[in-house]
Order: sequence, then C-alpha cells, then structure tokens
Amino acid sequence: MKARVTVTLKTGVLDPQGKAIENGLASLGFGGVGEVRQGKVFDIALSDRDAEKARADLSAMCEKLLANTVIENYAIEIL
Amino acid sequence: MKARVTVTLKTGVLDPQGKAIENGLASLGFGGVGEVRQGKVFDIALSDRDAEKARADLSAMCEKLLANTVIENYAIEIL
Repeated sequence: MKARVTVTLKTGVLDPQGKAIENGLASLGFGGVGEVRQGKVFDIALSDRDAEKARADLSAMCEKLLANTVIENYAIEIL
Repeated sequence: MKARVTVTLKTGVLDPQGKAIENGLASLGFGGVGEVRQGKVFDIALSDRDAEKARADLSAMCEKLLANTVIENYAIEIL
C-alpha cells in the first residue's frame, strides 16, 4: 500500500523559504503571484493491507518524526 | 485562485533524505515501512482567474524555478 503525507506550515507561521520563492518568481517576471508557502511531501510504501491501520500508523509517524506539530499540519492520503 | 505544485524525484534518482527518514522510522519501531521518498510542495496564490492560463503559468514556473526537470517531476493541481 502506498501513502502520501503532506506536511505544511500552519497559518501564521513565517515561511522565509516560501517568501524567497515568491520574490524569485517576481524577479523572473511572473506577475500576479501572491503568497507562496513551501511544504514537504513524503511518499511512503507500507506493508499494511488495512487502510484504517495504515492511517493510524501514518498518524503516529507524523506525530513522532515527520511533522513538528507545534508549527506544522499534516495530511494523510492513502493512494 | 490557489494552486498546489508537488515536486517529486524521478524514479531511479537516489533520495538520501528519504532513506534517512526510512531508517529513522525503523529505529522508532515502525515496522512494515518500505521505501520513503521525500518531495516538495508549493502552495501558490495566483491572481489568474482562468484555470487554463494558471496551469500554463505554473508550468512555466516549474520549468524555470520550482523544479529541476532533469531529476524531478512536477504535478500541478488547481484548488
């Protein structure tokens, strides 16, 4: 089973990397670009055959390693 | 209009960061985790009102700045 975990910064948390990309796009001549925020995506192969179990495992992985839940949100998608 | 661009490594390109996460998960006691690959996600606010135009703009942004198309794939999603 494959899953995708997306980790994004919570609203209100400063994102200097996103800001740099925003400025980079503007200086490349891309107009009309508003806020840019960067996040991370993890594609994970799991041996779980049960989607509910996989979701619970992934949630624990996010809490323990993949995301800093103080400043980041995570979303789990079973593919 | 909001869009999400997901940039992932092409198949076959080594991903040491993903490998490190894989090992980290294993040492935290998560069994049954296969390959982990890490990618990037960009949430971009656009002033475009036309989805086709937005998609073309985002594609150009990926080619020029957001992705290294030699080793990375990108996917555009209009939200």
